[in-house]
Amino acid sequence: MKRTAIRLADGRELIYFDERDDAVHAEVDRRQLPPPPPASELRYDPLTAEWVAIAAHRQTRTFLPPPDECPLCPSTPDRSTEVPAYDYDVVVFENRFPSLSDRFGPSAGPATPYTPVRPGEGRCEVVCFTSDHNASFASLPPTRVRTVLDALADRTAELSALPYVQQVFCFENRGVEIGVTLHHPHGQIYAYPFVTPRTRSMLAAARAHRGGNLFADVLAAERAAAVRVVAQNEHWTAYVPAAARWPFEVHLAPHRQVPDLPALDDAERAAFGPIYLDLLRRFDALFEGPMPYISAWHQAPVRDGRDLAYLHLQLFSIRRAPGKLKYLAGSESAMGVFINDIRPEEAARMLREAC
Amino acid sequence: MKRTAIRLADGRELIYFDERDDAVHAEVDRRQLPPPPPASELRYDPLTAEWVAIAAHRQTRTFLPPPDECPLCPSTPDRSTEVPAYDYDVVVFENRFPSLSDRFGPSAGPATPYTPVRPGEGRCEVVCFTSDHNASFASLPPTRVRTVLDALADRTAELSALPYVQQVFCFENRGVEIGVTLHHPHGQIYAYPFVTPRTRSMLAAARAHRGGNLFADVLAAERAAAVRVVAQNEHWTAYVPAAARWPFEVHLAPHRQVPDLPALDDAERAAFGPIYLDLLRRFDALFEGPMPYISAWHQAPVRDGRDLAYLHLQLFSIRRAPGKLKYLAGSESAMGVFINDIRPEEAARMLREAC
Repeated sequence: MKRTAIRLADGRELIYFDERDDAVHAEVDRRQLPPPPPASELRYDPLTAEWVAIAAHRQTRTFLPPPDECPLCPSTPDRSTEVPAYDYDVVVFENRFPSLSDRFGPSAGPATPYTPVRPGEGRCEVVCFTSDHNASFASLPPTRVRTVLDALADRTAELSALPYVQQVFCFENRGVEIGVTLHHPHGQIYAYPFVTPRTRSMLAAARAHRGGNLFADVLAAERAAAVRVVAQNEHWTAYVPAAARWPFEVHLAPHRQVPDLPALDDAERAAFGPIYLDLLRRFDALFEGPMPYISAWHQAPVRDGRDLAYLHLQLFSIRRAPGKLKYLAGSESAMGVFINDIRPEEAARMLREAC
Repeated sequence: MKRTAIRLADGRELIYFDERDDAVHAEVDRRQLPPPPPASELRYDPLTAEWVAIAAHRQTRTFLPPPDECPLCPSTPDRSTEVPAYDYDVVVFENRFPSLSDRFGPSAGPATPYTPVRPGEGRCEVVCFTSDHNASFASLPPTRVRTVLDALADRTAELSALPYVQQVFCFENRGVEIGVTLHHPHGQIYAYPFVTPRTRSMLAAARAHRGGNLFADVLAAERAAAVRVVAQNEHWTAYVPAAARWPFEVHLAPHRQVPDLPALDDAERAAFGPIYLDLLRRFDALFEGPMPYISAWHQAPVRDGRDLAYLHLQLFSIRRAPGKLKYLAGSESAMGVFINDIRPEEAARMLREAC
């Protein structure tokens, strides 16, 4: 894999990850771009002790452009996109409309004595999986999945070294049903300046657990129970968690406890592509049409709880039946109590039989 | 207000709350109904230390029926609905497809050693605000809002007395955009057998707060700052919280600290209708068409933290602009980090100017 870093016209960083070691990227971004917007604000919610990002500039972000105006496609002689190259394998660049960034002006004062405000320091990056606008992650060859994984590991390591970053989150949102605003196959990376609420909950539960590593114990129990296992190979197991929140939810975890993507060894990385592609194809085969999903890498925070955390991918969909979505309504959105209409054992059976 | 309790054909409880003290409800439910489904399962998610409800029977629940098949309309000589009466003011009954109920068979064993399973003991009730299928909450007269509020207080008190109920949650989901499956104006009540995750977070924050009651201090600070206040009267203030998670989110709180709806006095109840109706009309006036929203009463748990809690209504919408919704994608759904595209001060200004 060859790595080539350049700067876009407005100073944002862009990195090509090429599968050919002789790839050359001398293309220059010739656009006239305004400076990127300043960072969002982080505001502390005193009622829940959590930070909320207020990113007002994102209201004007690109929204479902026609295919011939896709900003993630390669550039052509006639049209400059976010990617100066005329072709690419995998490319990562700083989001033009970031929720978090390292550009900010003077600090705002607190909104109230109980709501401190600080700049939304961090990074938001876009990861293009392929130059083919009409592809999907599930249609990529295993070699490309490996390139994407290596790129995510690279970005995790580099972003983790930034002094203000506490957690790196790599994810893909897929489908207009969950709010995707660009159809070109892509993922995102959020480098947060705090440990996220979900990760704090998981670390607290892991800390309180008696026995071995909590996630390792749960993984072993799921492998032993077998009834919710969807797929497995030498290095990875995919299962529907016994208390799944979402109609179709799978946890895909390596058999060896590692904190994050950079810690995966070569054999684990090689074994990931085939099982993940298999899973995605099972998701798409469940119902008519492509399945909307969120694919979320749970990584250890950069500094805290690295021995307690256990790298895993959470893949889940809001589709519960043909033409029916799971909505987060009162119970989920206001109280945090999830109601799942599909038994995890049934979801696992449906996924095992789908193909 | 006159209260009349009856049983439906399958044994479920139904209660009429009539504004006329001479109202009579002798109508009998003449339908042949199968027994209500058994309770869902609660499964413990060891990774987050939270309970998830698995309610498989809800997959077949009534989904967007045509108006002439609405189960919440009054019955007619030709058609028996969920409500035997030919007219009503406010009526509350046990949900036919409950996420939680007091009917359950033998306990299932644990799903894994780390995922205990127990019956989804509790209650789910439906609250019809009016017999008029085409009304909305915002179109109700203030006297009806008072009747609804009194009915919710009645239900909260009665459900709180059940030995297995730990928290009573009254809410309204409005709009297909957030998954409403029945258009008839109605709300719901969930009586949970545990304290919900959101409430646990709020109680933990309140417990850690130095000063007076946390919510009271925040309310006083918002009233002093004034910039996010949307409306107020002698007994209530409505404001956009400084760290709002949702594009349009308002907290409506009484000026006196009370744990729950039954504790509101007569003057507070009388003052609620006018300000809440004003708020709902402002929501609907923001953009073209009715605003989808979730309206959620945060009440103290039945037993724990009643001195720390502070009754308030959280009213929020996922609409962020005409034709655009806020989706909970990777950051919100997988990490619990909310990105809000609208500054709370701007949302408050828009709501103040909408009418």
